[in-house]
Amino acid sequence: MRLSQFFMPTLREDPSEAQIVSHKMMMRAGMVRQASAGIYSWLPLGLRVLRRVETIVREEQDAAGCLELLMPTIQSADLWRESGRYDDYGKEMLRIRDRHDREMLFGPTNEELITDIFRAYVRSYRDLPKLLYHIQWKFRDEIRPRFGVMRGREFLMKDSYSFDLDFEGAKRAYNKMFVAYLRTFARMGLKAIPMRADPGVIGGDMSHEFIILASTGESQVYCDRALTERDVLGTAVDYGADLQTEVDRWTTPYAATDEMHDAAKAAALGDRLVEARGIEVGHIFYFGTKYSKPMNATVAGPNGEPVLVEMGSYGIGVSRLLGAIIEASHDEAGIVWPDSVAPFAVGLVNLKPGDGACDRLCDDVYARLRKAGTEVLYDDRSERAGVKFADMDLIGLPWQVIVGPRGAKGGQVEVKRRASGARDELGVDAALARIAR
Amino acid sequence: MRLSQFFMPTLREDPSEAQIVSHKMMMRAGMVRQASAGIYSWLPLGLRVLRRVETIVREEQDAAGCLELLMPTIQSADLWRESGRYDDYGKEMLRIRDRHDREMLFGPTNEELITDIFRAYVRSYRDLPKLLYHIQWKFRDEIRPRFGVMRGREFLMKDSYSFDLDFEGAKRAYNKMFVAYLRTFARMGLKAIPMRADPGVIGGDMSHEFIILASTGESQVYCDRALTERDVLGTAVDYGADLQTEVDRWTTPYAATDEMHDAAKAAALGDRLVEARGIEVGHIFYFGTKYSKPMNATVAGPNGEPVLVEMGSYGIGVSRLLGAIIEASHDEAGIVWPDSVAPFAVGLVNLKPGDGACDRLCDDVYARLRKAGTEVLYDDRSERAGVKFADMDLIGLPWQVIVGPRGAKGGQVEVKRRASGARDELGVDAALARIAR
Repeated sequence: MRLSQFFMPTLREDPSEAQIVSHKMMMRAGMVRQASAGIYSWLPLGLRVLRRVETIVREEQDAAGCLELLMPTIQSADLWRESGRYDDYGKEMLRIRDRHDREMLFGPTNEELITDIFRAYVRSYRDLPKLLYHIQWKFRDEIRPRFGVMRGREFLMKDSYSFDLDFEGAKRAYNKMFVAYLRTFARMGLKAIPMRADPGVIGGDMSHEFIILASTGESQVYCDRALTERDVLGTAVDYGADLQTEVDRWTTPYAATDEMHDAAKAAALGDRLVEARGIEVGHIFYFGTKYSKPMNATVAGPNGEPVLVEMGSYGIGVSRLLGAIIEASHDEAGIVWPDSVAPFAVGLVNLKPGDGACDRLCDDVYARLRKAGTEVLYDDRSERAGVKFADMDLIGLPWQVIVGPRGAKGGQVEVKRRASGARDELGVDAALARIAR
Repeated sequence: MRLSQFFMPTLREDPSEAQIVSHKMMMRAGMVRQASAGIYSWLPLGLRVLRRVETIVREEQDAAGCLELLMPTIQSADLWRESGRYDDYGKEMLRIRDRHDREMLFGPTNEELITDIFRAYVRSYRDLPKLLYHIQWKFRDEIRPRFGVMRGREFLMKDSYSFDLDFEGAKRAYNKMFVAYLRTFARMGLKAIPMRADPGVIGGDMSHEFIILASTGESQVYCDRALTERDVLGTAVDYGADLQTEVDRWTTPYAATDEMHDAAKAAALGDRLVEARGIEVGHIFYFGTKYSKPMNATVAGPNGEPVLVEMGSYGIGVSRLLGAIIEASHDEAGIVWPDSVAPFAVGLVNLKPGDGACDRLCDDVYARLRKAGTEVLYDDRSERAGVKFADMDLIGLPWQVIVGPRGAKGGQVEVKRRASGARDELGVDAALARIAR
């Protein structure tokens, strides 16, 4: 993509309304624009990252045997009356009356609707287990939306729901999602620590939040340092196998949010204790028959008797993740995208458009990168070098290839790795080989 | 995907509420489930087709130089007051008050919001032309939603918007979208005829509807038979070139919807006149400064003076297309998906699960198809052969590979092409070669 033909309105100054670094940088990089309080338009650069994050989430859900469907944004109030949540949910639910004065709402979550789909079709224990998910825009009418996409009102969420015949089955589903979440966040370059969360009225230990450690995090968290040093992606997962041992390996060391914090256990860690700020990016939750009971979602069990299905739900804040990734990966100059979610792999900077040697060399690099299937943003604008360097650092593409008139004469380009700042003068072949590595 | 592990709740009977064939078949094939009047959940099979249709739309927009962004579903009423449409739009607009009693709405279209984005960032004629699009859920509160996804309330639409300095530029943008639309629909196996549509208050001839001919169409249409016999995809398009000749080639022969019908011109066609029912799947529209003027969207022209930008909008009903494709491509037994949008390329039918030879042969075919990157739905259920044949015809996958105990002993399978009904007994190698062709 040539930047002269792209739509990436970068800003020189921090927008006054932005309080945290990810919000500032997303606005300055031209990734999002606020449409109303807590509601954002995703400009082309931001949308590219959103789609990459969404794709990683989807791939890991699919790998875990979760089936994708798509529920609508607008729901009928009737289902929420069945579960008893219509009155409980309070003002965060965006309530709507249609032209026939029927009570509707913009879904803040989907337990009711998925339970309704399940009970309409699934009749027998032989059809279980079922793990279903969708990735859809949700709305929660926060009283004070802030921090950009980190706490917006309209946000993209992946929510999965498991249906099982008994607690043992529900636990297997929970463990699958537990492991899938570890892999999902690791693929985005994040260290997400599963921490025991409040299981609410259900009790038990089957509720975990996945927390990113970042100095700008919204809450205080505590964990064993060992949890922050693990390699998650080193071995493949067999989702057909029993994953309990793997889950235990993560849940045995101490890790807790402020609400669940146990000072004595934390103190016992000595210098292995990490105290940090955390950002929640996922939450998995077993809730048994909380919805199947009031909504009468049963299957015929092995002896023909109706059995209420055991359920769990599993959420990832997809749009929120963009903020979390930036909070965890940036420097003074801007964003530092992990390779897996970067909007383009390479930024190609022509320091002197109009100069024959620069243009030819850039055209050559651009064509060869594209031919190799590498996504490249080519800054062909007539701007000062300083503006180009600042914009390229700000938008945080993993690699920069910088072409100036002096080097271009000798066929040399500068290759810069955004994360480390390491720079090298190389010939074009060597530069392309470095990037492809 | 093994059908035993999939979620595809097929129905034996036509649902009573469905009046047209596409609605009946989408319900029976387990593609969608109605959540509320005119609001659907997309079950896994339906979602797969929706994504394929969406991908074709996206690829052709990108090829035409249109940049993708994503605007939110919930908009502020303020922008619609600026354009004057908030009061005009009537009851089809879903109006909402948030917790702070601010007037919001679920976007039925996005002229106001995209104009607001444009005017916030684009300053100079040098930044033009700009073609922007998004693919997002819209809501129109139809008084009587019907025909399934063909006239739903919550629906997925691709809408593009062009911004140009003058009429000539706007015409170039219009022509790009005109040609991109021809290609988009042709890639889905559809014959879409561009027909002059009512240009409304703007006048002129720059408004076309793209109409699929189908006996169950919603409106009467007329056109020159020559338009129905053209090969659209035979030659590549250069979107940098002047496309006026190509557009003229399509707009010169007679083609009109009922509202624009000219009986004398139609009669002059003699036996080349096609009278048919039509389904609108796209609409392109030039509207000049209709929004830029009240919303003051200007750029600095070549002499520094502010110039109101010339705009057009270009819509494709993405979710509606699934209904239109089925209306245009089905038979008594069910859907006949064109290869390009089929949810799976191949349905593999094991007529006797548990039979050693059948299972081994099916496992082999399944593994080899997957290895070749072919998407296959493997019916491994313990159901009667009749049920399996009926389901497979109903869901309309382009190829069926049928494995029964007699053939399996000799390594033979039956390959059936869904569209033609042609069947052949073949060895596995020959069967796979046939499908890959």
